[in-house]
Amino acid sequence: MRSQLSQRLIQSKQILRDFPRSRRYLVGVSGGRDSVALLHSLVDLGYKNLIVCHLNHQLRGRSSAADARFVENLAAKYDVDLAIESKNVRALAAKKKMSIETAARDARYDFFANIAKRKRCRTIFLAHHADDLVETFLINLFRGAGTTGLGAMRNVSKRRINGVDITIVRPLLGVWRNEIDKFVRTHRLKFREDASNKNLAPLRNRSRHRVIPYLEKTLGRNIRQNIWRAAAIASEEESFFEQLLPPELAKVTELGVKQLRSLPVAVQRRAIRAWLRSKEIVDLGFDLIENVRALLDSASAAKTNLPRDRHARRRAGKIFVE
Amino acid sequence: MRSQLSQRLIQSKQILRDFPRSRRYLVGVSGGRDSVALLHSLVDLGYKNLIVCHLNHQLRGRSSAADARFVENLAAKYDVDLAIESKNVRALAAKKKMSIETAARDARYDFFANIAKRKRCRTIFLAHHADDLVETFLINLFRGAGTTGLGAMRNVSKRRINGVDITIVRPLLGVWRNEIDKFVRTHRLKFREDASNKNLAPLRNRSRHRVIPYLEKTLGRNIRQNIWRAAAIASEEESFFEQLLPPELAKVTELGVKQLRSLPVAVQRRAIRAWLRSKEIVDLGFDLIENVRALLDSASAAKTNLPRDRHARRRAGKIFVE
Repeated sequence: MRSQLSQRLIQSKQILRDFPRSRRYLVGVSGGRDSVALLHSLVDLGYKNLIVCHLNHQLRGRSSAADARFVENLAAKYDVDLAIESKNVRALAAKKKMSIETAARDARYDFFANIAKRKRCRTIFLAHHADDLVETFLINLFRGAGTTGLGAMRNVSKRRINGVDITIVRPLLGVWRNEIDKFVRTHRLKFREDASNKNLAPLRNRSRHRVIPYLEKTLGRNIRQNIWRAAAIASEEESFFEQLLPPELAKVTELGVKQLRSLPVAVQRRAIRAWLRSKEIVDLGFDLIENVRALLDSASAAKTNLPRDRHARRRAGKIFVE
Repeated sequence: MRSQLSQRLIQSKQILRDFPRSRRYLVGVSGGRDSVALLHSLVDLGYKNLIVCHLNHQLRGRSSAADARFVENLAAKYDVDLAIESKNVRALAAKKKMSIETAARDARYDFFANIAKRKRCRTIFLAHHADDLVETFLINLFRGAGTTGLGAMRNVSKRRINGVDITIVRPLLGVWRNEIDKFVRTHRLKFREDASNKNLAPLRNRSRHRVIPYLEKTLGRNIRQNIWRAAAIASEEESFFEQLLPPELAKVTELGVKQLRSLPVAVQRRAIRAWLRSKEIVDLGFDLIENVRALLDSASAAKTNLPRDRHARRRAGKIFVE
């Protein structure tokens, strides 16, 4: 009975097949409802060799410390390993001139990459669910992110952070928030009210609390499901595009102008994106990528600015970051 | 001065390059503001060898007849050829159990294909603009159409209708409705109030008059521009996918199950879509395509229903329409 529910929660059989229970995995656990449900399901499904990863964002003082203690107890309860760290996200956001939400996410991924390296365990499970997928799709659409952004949240994706390649697995992308609610109630799971909900960037906040409810009211309740489908397809096609990328991309220090020019625009954009990402350039929005792509035109400027005082430059038929 | 404005209206230089002024083209002209502006710009830019195509939808009795007369006079004014036909769209919609909007569109494309064949002129200019692109993108998103649908409206696309291959060119996709308004005012162009605005399908109506204004109010005025960018990229990527399709697709009567299975899902979907379209199957939504794609699984049913009492069937390793 219990296993059946967990199985439904982690719907994708493919995920269970590609990530066998016998191996070791990281799990991101904030202590909020979604990640508590994920951890419970994974343990329930027979994943024993887990390392619970929790970053204390220090955003709510004693409440944040209590979140960390809660996750500590959770790991003890399930008898799995634990990695906890602490980071002053507010200070980080101020220093890097980022929103709290973005700084928190960056700090989390940095932390995950650290643990992945230290523990020699490169795969992490995260608790993003169907509502997150819809929300992220819409936010990227409203930002004009283009297809690369539209297909940003995937069941399985690879990412290079601080020189560490990690695989991010999101087994709950097909599960709705209200299904998780129900699961948590059925199993009487305790969880902490998610602090991060109070630090949403304005666009996410308005999308979640105003735009999506408005769309449901105006266009009917299945609108969420329909957007989910479009988002899921966009993600799938994104994987397809990734397969077309030159495999050595992340390792090369320079991009050949001639080679890049020979690719279709859709692949050029993704090649530039993947390459910049491997060089740990942040905030890879559409305009930034288009600015770098403009370097392919030998009649245009040979240099463009990147975030954090870095630059992309074209010289002698090559593009490089400095 | 005049030419400068027209040039701005038909922004894409690529379009002007790929469709030289010396050749002959069809232009869809309803008599509404957008198509009047398009025709005026084309003539202004030196396109002289045009055939104005107008379908009388018979939806508003004498007003529809007056639209047709207006377009007749317009063609005479610009000294270009004219093709006018008349179709009882309301009866067609009732007979085919379609919305008026869908029946009107189908009837128009049938008409365009007829004229294309009769006049041996396979390229048609249509007046869809940036607001249409945004609106169509959102409607397809709200329908859950997936990427194939998201990138549906393109600068240049090919389509097979009633056995006739036509090329559809939309030079105004980068121009906003209010820019067209301004253009029409500046040149004091007369036009007919667009009858089709009164026959919008409910989803388009709500998207145009409620959802988009709501998004602008909630998320700021540049939201339209941002969605436009995502839509334009989706369209561009759609062209890329089309290049990956087996070129003989439209001509084969049967699809090889084995060959189709060897393609990535993203390409399978588009191959099926293109093939069904060449067989003149209508209403190619996501579910319909997925149902046909399910025929690839030899464990599943060997037959699926298509609109208008047609069927797709798998037999001896082939899929065909009957």
